[in-house]
Amino acid sequence: MCEFVNYGLQMGKQSICFEKPVYIMSSACIVGPKEGEGPLKDTFDKIVEDATFGKDSWEEGESEMLKETVLLAIDKAKLKPTDIRYLFAGDLLGQLIATTFGVKDINIPLFGLYGACSTMGEALALGAMTIHGGYANAVVTAVSSHFGGAEKQFRFPLEYGNQRPMSSTWTVTGSGALVLSKDFGDVMITGITTGKVVDYGVKDSLNMGACMAPAAADLIYQHLKDFDRTTDYYDRIVTGDLGVVGSEILCKLLNDQGVDISKVHMDCGMAIYDDERQDTHAGGSGCACSAVTLAGKLLNEIKFGETERILFVPTGALLSTVSFNEGQSVPGIAHGIVIERRVQTVD
Amino acid sequence: MCEFVNYGLQMGKQSICFEKPVYIMSSACIVGPKEGEGPLKDTFDKIVEDATFGKDSWEEGESEMLKETVLLAIDKAKLKPTDIRYLFAGDLLGQLIATTFGVKDINIPLFGLYGACSTMGEALALGAMTIHGGYANAVVTAVSSHFGGAEKQFRFPLEYGNQRPMSSTWTVTGSGALVLSKDFGDVMITGITTGKVVDYGVKDSLNMGACMAPAAADLIYQHLKDFDRTTDYYDRIVTGDLGVVGSEILCKLLNDQGVDISKVHMDCGMAIYDDERQDTHAGGSGCACSAVTLAGKLLNEIKFGETERILFVPTGALLSTVSFNEGQSVPGIAHGIVIERRVQTVD
Repeated sequence: MCEFVNYGLQMGKQSICFEKPVYIMSSACIVGPKEGEGPLKDTFDKIVEDATFGKDSWEEGESEMLKETVLLAIDKAKLKPTDIRYLFAGDLLGQLIATTFGVKDINIPLFGLYGACSTMGEALALGAMTIHGGYANAVVTAVSSHFGGAEKQFRFPLEYGNQRPMSSTWTVTGSGALVLSKDFGDVMITGITTGKVVDYGVKDSLNMGACMAPAAADLIYQHLKDFDRTTDYYDRIVTGDLGVVGSEILCKLLNDQGVDISKVHMDCGMAIYDDERQDTHAGGSGCACSAVTLAGKLLNEIKFGETERILFVPTGALLSTVSFNEGQSVPGIAHGIVIERRVQTVD
Repeated sequence: MCEFVNYGLQMGKQSICFEKPVYIMSSACIVGPKEGEGPLKDTFDKIVEDATFGKDSWEEGESEMLKETVLLAIDKAKLKPTDIRYLFAGDLLGQLIATTFGVKDINIPLFGLYGACSTMGEALALGAMTIHGGYANAVVTAVSSHFGGAEKQFRFPLEYGNQRPMSSTWTVTGSGALVLSKDFGDVMITGITTGKVVDYGVKDSLNMGACMAPAAADLIYQHLKDFDRTTDYYDRIVTGDLGVVGSEILCKLLNDQGVDISKVHMDCGMAIYDDERQDTHAGGSGCACSAVTLAGKLLNEIKFGETERILFVPTGALLSTVSFNEGQSVPGIAHGIVIERRVQTVD
């Protein structure tokens, strides 16, 4: 928890330090077959062999996956959908159709969010603010992404079989959901830092890591400043899906500002696939990349005491085919969430 | 303000009644040429003759319009961008590109939202929760839409000159922004009701009113139940962009549940154009439809005492070309915001 002299809510320029922590009651993650063959395979709740989830299209499959993940997270928290006051959710598809059709039968008031691959960070920030503000006893944050749907949405038809440059990332087929509550859980959210749109003018949509790294650097730098912390406060500073290329740029940008995160940095995009074996190139990406890594591996490690605290920084590349085709750059955004193990003696 | 025995924050199933009101410090609205020739022309801050705003594309024009509107709202509140802690913003375009490129130089932490044409309601709900929770002194809520960009995104190329059925609505070219604060203003937000995705299985994307009316009916019914109010509590219950067709369906659906809103109902989509003269058919639509009507006409009326209190219910149709082409229905969502004149004697 925060140990500042200034124990107020608003920390510095872009951050909030919660007076009372918000608890993560449960998490769920469901992934597709490729993710299920990767290094994190043992940390997922469910690996689905059929990437369309038995539906007629990737998009419908993604919706089904999101729905199952949300219901599983609620179930793992020993709650019912009617116990959940708000759903903070989003995906990568235009007009959030994966979310819309995924949650429409769950019947929970919805705040639809778009922060590209940073959406789980945005959802956790707003969800934690909502719980901490006393507006809800329990909320769910959920995101999804799908390789097939994302390629169709953003790049080329899969059938075209285009060559992918080594800087490109592979969109994770998966969905992650967390239940937040004011009731005690093993893991807690103690602070957030909200990102701004950062544009370095990079225009290469097949090098998303480079597009997003400046936003991640900006966010991490501001976070440490707002909270008056150094990087060694964290066991891990976890970025979303910068991949190999973006991670290198991130470390360099922060080094230029006198911040060395190399000892604690981990990137979900670099953790989720094994490039040599899986031919994914720079790493994984998509809303689900950081969300399933958080919901599985990272929260497990905190829960079981292997890690005490992390700064979770999912990153988003803010482009569409329209903006790309009209020659616009690809700005980035990142959101920071402080996630810590509950110190049992405190309560 | 709320006068309940239960003065708690969480009202009923989907609503929050704020213990202290959140104030609307200022509002700004900028529209395109067609809106500037409509019945509300005298209520807009600025009417732009060139729908591309001097830029190379509709999308860039929309971004420019959003940016100008946000800066104007901040200026009207006698604040600077650095005084604004968060921006809650969204638009209709895939991956929110109008918002991204509109706000990237304003340098304010961003929560990107997607609720289709209900986005101003979603933004006001989250913005008011944020202010009320003590997380910020001032936030901006902003949305935009653009006829050219929306037709290109959702329907046919304008050059194709397709015939529009009488049930179709005309996307408003415009942008609306509000500054919310804990400091006193003339107008206040005293409660919110958050909507769920409601799907009646309507599949006609050229009859958005019919797609959204069930969500509006569901929201209004739940709002009145949560707050234990009857329709005569409000001078106006204002829907976003149901148009002629959707408004009729809304009134019928609510009548079936024993609620008669006919005396107080107003639809922004029906107010913004003069169909006989402007050939817009069922009315206006788009995020900006309700946002510019609120930022101009509605808030002016409350400020100057012509109206005491309204329930603002923007509605969104949750579809994309992908979901539409894959044969999915068009679900709807609506968000309710209680906006009241500040009673001077209370403070």
